[in-house]
Amino acid sequence: MDFKASGIMTLTSDFGLADSFVGTMKGVMLCINPALVFVDISHQIPPQDILEGSFSLQSAYSYFPPGTIHLAVVDPGVGGLRRPLLVVTRDYLFVGPDNGLFSFIFSDSSFQAAYELTAGKYFLEPAGATFHGRDIFAPAAAWLSTGTPISEMGRTIHDPVTLKIPEPKVIGTSKIQGEIIHVDHFGNLISNIPVELYERLRAGWGNRSIRISILAQGIGKIVRYYGEGSEEEPFALFNSSGWMEIFWKGSNAAEKLGVRRGEKVHLYTV
Amino acid sequence: MDFKASGIMTLTSDFGLADSFVGTMKGVMLCINPALVFVDISHQIPPQDILEGSFSLQSAYSYFPPGTIHLAVVDPGVGGLRRPLLVVTRDYLFVGPDNGLFSFIFSDSSFQAAYELTAGKYFLEPAGATFHGRDIFAPAAAWLSTGTPISEMGRTIHDPVTLKIPEPKVIGTSKIQGEIIHVDHFGNLISNIPVELYERLRAGWGNRSIRISILAQGIGKIVRYYGEGSEEEPFALFNSSGWMEIFWKGSNAAEKLGVRRGEKVHLYTV
Amino acid sequence: MDFKASGIMTLTSDFGLADSFVGTMKGVMLCINPALVFVDISHQIPPQDILEGSFSLQSAYSYFPPGTIHLAVVDPGVGGLRRPLLVVTRDYLFVGPDNGLFSFIFSDSSFQAAYELTAGKYFLEPAGATFHGRDIFAPAAAWLSTGTPISEMGRTIHDPVTLKIPEPKVIGTSKIQGEIIHVDHFGNLISNIPVELYERLRAGWGNRSIRISILAQGIGKIVRYYGEGSEEEPFALFNSSGWMEIFWKGSNAAEKLGVRRGEKVHLYTV
Repeated sequence: MDFKASGIMTLTSDFGLADSFVGTMKGVMLCINPALVFVDISHQIPPQDILEGSFSLQSAYSYFPPGTIHLAVVDPGVGGLRRPLLVVTRDYLFVGPDNGLFSFIFSDSSFQAAYELTAGKYFLEPAGATFHGRDIFAPAAAWLSTGTPISEMGRTIHDPVTLKIPEPKVIGTSKIQGEIIHVDHFGNLISNIPVELYERLRAGWGNRSIRISILAQGIGKIVRYYGEGSEEEPFALFNSSGWMEIFWKGSNAAEKLGVRRGEKVHLYTV
Repeated sequence: MDFKASGIMTLTSDFGLADSFVGTMKGVMLCINPALVFVDISHQIPPQDILEGSFSLQSAYSYFPPGTIHLAVVDPGVGGLRRPLLVVTRDYLFVGPDNGLFSFIFSDSSFQAAYELTAGKYFLEPAGATFHGRDIFAPAAAWLSTGTPISEMGRTIHDPVTLKIPEPKVIGTSKIQGEIIHVDHFGNLISNIPVELYERLRAGWGNRSIRISILAQGIGKIVRYYGEGSEEEPFALFNSSGWMEIFWKGSNAAEKLGVRRGEKVHLYTV
Repeated sequence: MDFKASGIMTLTSDFGLADSFVGTMKGVMLCINPALVFVDISHQIPPQDILEGSFSLQSAYSYFPPGTIHLAVVDPGVGGLRRPLLVVTRDYLFVGPDNGLFSFIFSDSSFQAAYELTAGKYFLEPAGATFHGRDIFAPAAAWLSTGTPISEMGRTIHDPVTLKIPEPKVIGTSKIQGEIIHVDHFGNLISNIPVELYERLRAGWGNRSIRISILAQGIGKIVRYYGEGSEEEPFALFNSSGWMEIFWKGSNAAEKLGVRRGEKVHLYTV
């Protein structure tokens, strides 16, 4: 377990930006390591929405330099029995509650180990019951950034909580049933259908035509970029993260279609 | 008056994040001190709400390293007669309008002195009438961060504007009447009843039962952490800042109860 | 073309703060130049609103130290034929899509040259079709911050896209017809009438009275600062950026008057 901190710390939370929660966490960390560089990933994860927090972090974490520490706090179980967690991968550390927020990394080939954070001397004392971001996760992450050995922070665990992440279903050889796993700021609908799956199935479809539907609404077709869509109806594309995405050129697709996260989307050939 | 700047500057304002106001202040400061490290506390203080700005800064300021400068601009009187203020405490400087924003610190044992900022050579010239954040407060704060002596910035004053901060009332020996002083991002209702006051009174209550009510709605009981609450009714706890807080597990208590800041809350024994 | 990067990078976009887009761009840049200092100007430009993005950047860019790189991504044409652009001025670089976002600088005396970014080796490969902020603009800007010669990044162009920015009309010698070009966070209505134009005309008006109207609503009068306005009706002033601005003391003028960007405003003498 040989982690060399870069001094970069990302932050992801459902704390919003109106309260002083995020600033307070940064203050706590600067007291421990004044050289830290912070990058906010998002603090507008919907309240207590672990799945969205996980999606957000998963989209971003690998774009940071090796040695980055990813601090994430979406924590409905704060103050109770859920464990504070440290996850070690080849390039990164992840610090936050053990509630599934980091599930996406457990099955990655870069995963190395998970620890329960137990060393109270690296927490703010006495830790209160409502703001472990300030009292436990921020100081633990900051101490890790100073080179505190991982082995001093807690004990290895083998059963971190794992989130059930929705997977697309392949039905026969002609249909994929996915679902919308994220609606972005523009109202684009991000599905859990990866481009690799689509291309694998399509290889067997010859030149049969491809249909996409959501909420019984047909989608124009699959294009390469937004500008190839139309203002008259929604289109689909595979986005820069490799997911199938439904958009409506110049509009908010989620609003126009009345679609929210969790809606099923069907991709099939006829 | 011996202040050693750490190079850390926090920012608190009601400027929001949609306009370029905050970025512009940072640009101005980087021209004066390119080594500054900024931490945003909040820029979503409700427009011109000095009390909320004060609450936000009060919650966060002491978690920063000694030598931090706290710049805060919630400034309905901009361009008029209100004075630009510098407050010196044992560990920090506070820079902003003299309108009560820093009231919480005047009676703290760490308070040392207050100054009217008068040295125009440390402002952007000519200062306009609508954006003293950019033209006066940011440059003054940045010059202070470079080690400019406090005595060069202005003249001592003994009458900084003090905000009337709501205090809880103790009625007899069996009742505390407090009020909601902040509604957080999750809809939790933060009262002005501190845990010390509660524990002092409760010591005399033996095992008589405790009641809490707000807007004629009873509150379940006082628990230790959110997870001990219920999805059926609101509960209370003492939060990590030491205030009594009313929450509704898994929901937004403010919305469910129809409560806003200023609402009275009653804690009593029967 | 002799640009000496300061290591400061500003960011302006319509990405919002809920998704991980902005954090991801910063991660990409820190991989290339770990010493970068980021300042967010705004990420709440209305979706695909190039004019607002341009206004925001124009208000802020000149307050940053020489050597700052301004990265801006409001990019409805992403993935299509619009060119990636680098603009060089005396003090700054601007990096973003060639869609008019930087129009305000082309006619400035500090303007030096415009380049199409073509050197794919400075992009993330393979660039996807929906997130050139991450794949093209952020890495190109980061490489520029490390001192990569401008001449290596692409080829000079002489026809960058220019936005039609609304200009006020002078009608005879007694009237200016302007329009609202921005509504700020407080609901103040920023017009495109500059103080210099107003003062030039007013010089010939002697002591004839001045009227301002918007949507057939008269405006009290022109005052010096917000505190001189009234809670009974809207007033006007020339703000700290030199634009005529309509405000309503203690209220949101845009909401009270029902005015949005684009509304005409009339300033005249009778």
